[in-house]
Amino acid sequence: MRMYDIIAKKRDGGTLSREEINFFVSGYTAGEIPDYQASALTMAIFWRGMTERETAELTLAMAHSGDILDLSPISGVKVDKHSTGGVGDKTSLVLGPMVAALGVPVAKMSGRGLGHTGGTIDKLESFPGFETGISEREFYANVNRIGIAIAGQTGNLAPADKKLYALRDVTATVESIPLIAASIMSKKIAAGADVIVLDVKTGSGAFMKTEEQALLLAREMVRIGTNVGRKTTAVVSNMDEPLGYAVGNSLEVIEAINTLDGHGPEDLLELCLELGSHMVVGAGAAENAKEAKKELLRVIDDKSALRKLAELVEAQKGDGRAVYDTALLPASSIVRTVEAKEDGYVEGIACDTVGLCSMVLGGGRETKESVIDLSVGIVLNKKTCDYAAKGDTLATFYANDAAKLEDALSRFEGAYRIGENPVRKQKLIRHIITEELP
Amino acid sequence: MRMYDIIAKKRDGGTLSREEINFFVSGYTAGEIPDYQASALTMAIFWRGMTERETAELTLAMAHSGDILDLSPISGVKVDKHSTGGVGDKTSLVLGPMVAALGVPVAKMSGRGLGHTGGTIDKLESFPGFETGISEREFYANVNRIGIAIAGQTGNLAPADKKLYALRDVTATVESIPLIAASIMSKKIAAGADVIVLDVKTGSGAFMKTEEQALLLAREMVRIGTNVGRKTTAVVSNMDEPLGYAVGNSLEVIEAINTLDGHGPEDLLELCLELGSHMVVGAGAAENAKEAKKELLRVIDDKSALRKLAELVEAQKGDGRAVYDTALLPASSIVRTVEAKEDGYVEGIACDTVGLCSMVLGGGRETKESVIDLSVGIVLNKKTCDYAAKGDTLATFYANDAAKLEDALSRFEGAYRIGENPVRKQKLIRHIITEELP
Repeated sequence: MRMYDIIAKKRDGGTLSREEINFFVSGYTAGEIPDYQASALTMAIFWRGMTERETAELTLAMAHSGDILDLSPISGVKVDKHSTGGVGDKTSLVLGPMVAALGVPVAKMSGRGLGHTGGTIDKLESFPGFETGISEREFYANVNRIGIAIAGQTGNLAPADKKLYALRDVTATVESIPLIAASIMSKKIAAGADVIVLDVKTGSGAFMKTEEQALLLAREMVRIGTNVGRKTTAVVSNMDEPLGYAVGNSLEVIEAINTLDGHGPEDLLELCLELGSHMVVGAGAAENAKEAKKELLRVIDDKSALRKLAELVEAQKGDGRAVYDTALLPASSIVRTVEAKEDGYVEGIACDTVGLCSMVLGGGRETKESVIDLSVGIVLNKKTCDYAAKGDTLATFYANDAAKLEDALSRFEGAYRIGENPVRKQKLIRHIITEELP
Repeated sequence: MRMYDIIAKKRDGGTLSREEINFFVSGYTAGEIPDYQASALTMAIFWRGMTERETAELTLAMAHSGDILDLSPISGVKVDKHSTGGVGDKTSLVLGPMVAALGVPVAKMSGRGLGHTGGTIDKLESFPGFETGISEREFYANVNRIGIAIAGQTGNLAPADKKLYALRDVTATVESIPLIAASIMSKKIAAGADVIVLDVKTGSGAFMKTEEQALLLAREMVRIGTNVGRKTTAVVSNMDEPLGYAVGNSLEVIEAINTLDGHGPEDLLELCLELGSHMVVGAGAAENAKEAKKELLRVIDDKSALRKLAELVEAQKGDGRAVYDTALLPASSIVRTVEAKEDGYVEGIACDTVGLCSMVLGGGRETKESVIDLSVGIVLNKKTCDYAAKGDTLATFYANDAAKLEDALSRFEGAYRIGENPVRKQKLIRHIITEELP
């Protein structure tokens, strides 16, 4: 078998066999197939696409390119959740404790990644002393003892995906649905959960700009997961504006705490209930989604989810008191508001711009080496459909560096679209996709 | 400017600017742009194509990536000829002496290349003692003294093309008309001739399998050459069967000698007269093609073209007597014939198979390091339309290694398609393309 022939076959619109896909994935992982052949193939895949079967084979080949986690030390059905990423997405911080409070084990391995804020484990580091680098033994012990652990990814999970993603990132071949689906699902499959819930965002602040694209991706991933025996559900949700109000690390932690305490933003709660219900039902802890949502609301009402967060923080050596006193979390030194220049209704918020401003303030990683400032970020005071009178605060910027603040503020110009007429609310949850094997 | 954006632009069907193309070509030549980005771009070009302007810019950028030959030491109009390559293509060996015999300077730099036989300079090395590595000074002096010199390519001609071609060759991105056109024309432009005649082959034994593809390529190249002020003509000719009868190095030299001596194969002569007429007219040595062909036939009749070949060989330290006594050329030790198994008309000859057999016998280079056996090859005894009675010799194999011969013979099975009915002769010359600037 020759890599040349595999490239030429895909280039000409052919369908690759399992053997050809395995040859590529194992050869590329081992360094036997050079980057320049891999990038020609990924561009050909970008062009010609992949059949369902090819995408599934690619996923499995990448999943098996490294370790497959064995979660058997944890009792019960293991659930995992993945988000395709959006601005102000703090769902994991809310979902983990809620679901765990219902007795569903949450064993989450999370990456740090690049973006406008840190990942879930960066955000958790807002709790003074919190340790994400716990040992595997401790990780499993915590899940069995308190029902939840969230740690930085260890082990050699899907190294083929890691290598291929880095290549796609510099060769303009990221935005390919089969390649995205295979990338996400290979990691999820290697991470070993029985139930996978996918949070697929669509809209101006999401990777998938159109609902059609998001749906294609969601269906592809559900199909792959289902076919390898993982109960998989995808929820397609709107990301035309940030989720909730807060964008930034400790700012998002505070919003997550508020949500677990019963006074979070409506959209964030709605999405968490939707995603959480599929996790809970998938784990067999509720009969159906309706019952699951009732239960999830109950653990908010009786504060057991909030207590679960405190337990999680304490179990990983963080200061659990911060859950009840957010003044203990990192805070910025400069606070500046942005006011409305005219009366009107908020027609839309440039989601990408808000994310970029958080990055500029220092809240995210531009390169792997960047150090995140956990305290900075933006809190929106008005969201789409809200009325703002001239002079009303639209958003509040939290910064530690005056120059970065000015840069962010100047980029923020025009982020709010204000109009004269009231605006109709968009639906947050767009599609729920699941599949049953016959 | 970022290479990433250039890849993404082409991927999305955009048109690259001159600045973007120059950025890529100069960065890639300098090693600043890695192979994996270049291969992603070439696959995107394979997919999306290039406009005329883009192709011209790419050609010029690659032509200027190294030296541009200055042929001013040679007096008169300089003509160059390029063939896209076919099986049994010995036209340069015939054309050079014919055209030079008419006083048109022939200053040919030729590569060795890979293929079923060697290139023109390999074939010339069949003459004992022939030197292709002559100095530049000697090269120009020979052209001025005897009107012809054929040497291995020296200098740093179009290094961008060299590097990019090597990459395309292993990433399945060779077969792209704009990339082929830019590759050929960048070298021709850098080689400095005033008049360029392109021999574009089409058919089963050619790189361009369909006439439509060959025409597109021919037009593209003529357009590029014309626009940079080189008088450019392309002749599209049929390559559904080998040109002439001989395939192999010294075997082709013998056939070229026979042609210059007035008893060569009809198709080879026809093509040489066509290509030669454009060279002669382009150089201003004849009024029109008809007159040029008459003159070209005259230098065959009066043997002055044959004498010119002997002069060329002698001038480059070869044994010119071999022109008159081909027994002095390398000869193989084993000769084996292939007979017709039934009566019938030759409907076609698998041109690729004949080429492959020549390669298997040792007549071509599989890798740059391969050593060519100049004496081996195949001489066809029957060509398309010929009648063959059962037992008639269809082809004669010349070999030096019994195992290679058996391998070649087994691959040759079925190379001749024989049918019951007479076959209509195909036209050799299909199109002649030229363009005038207004």
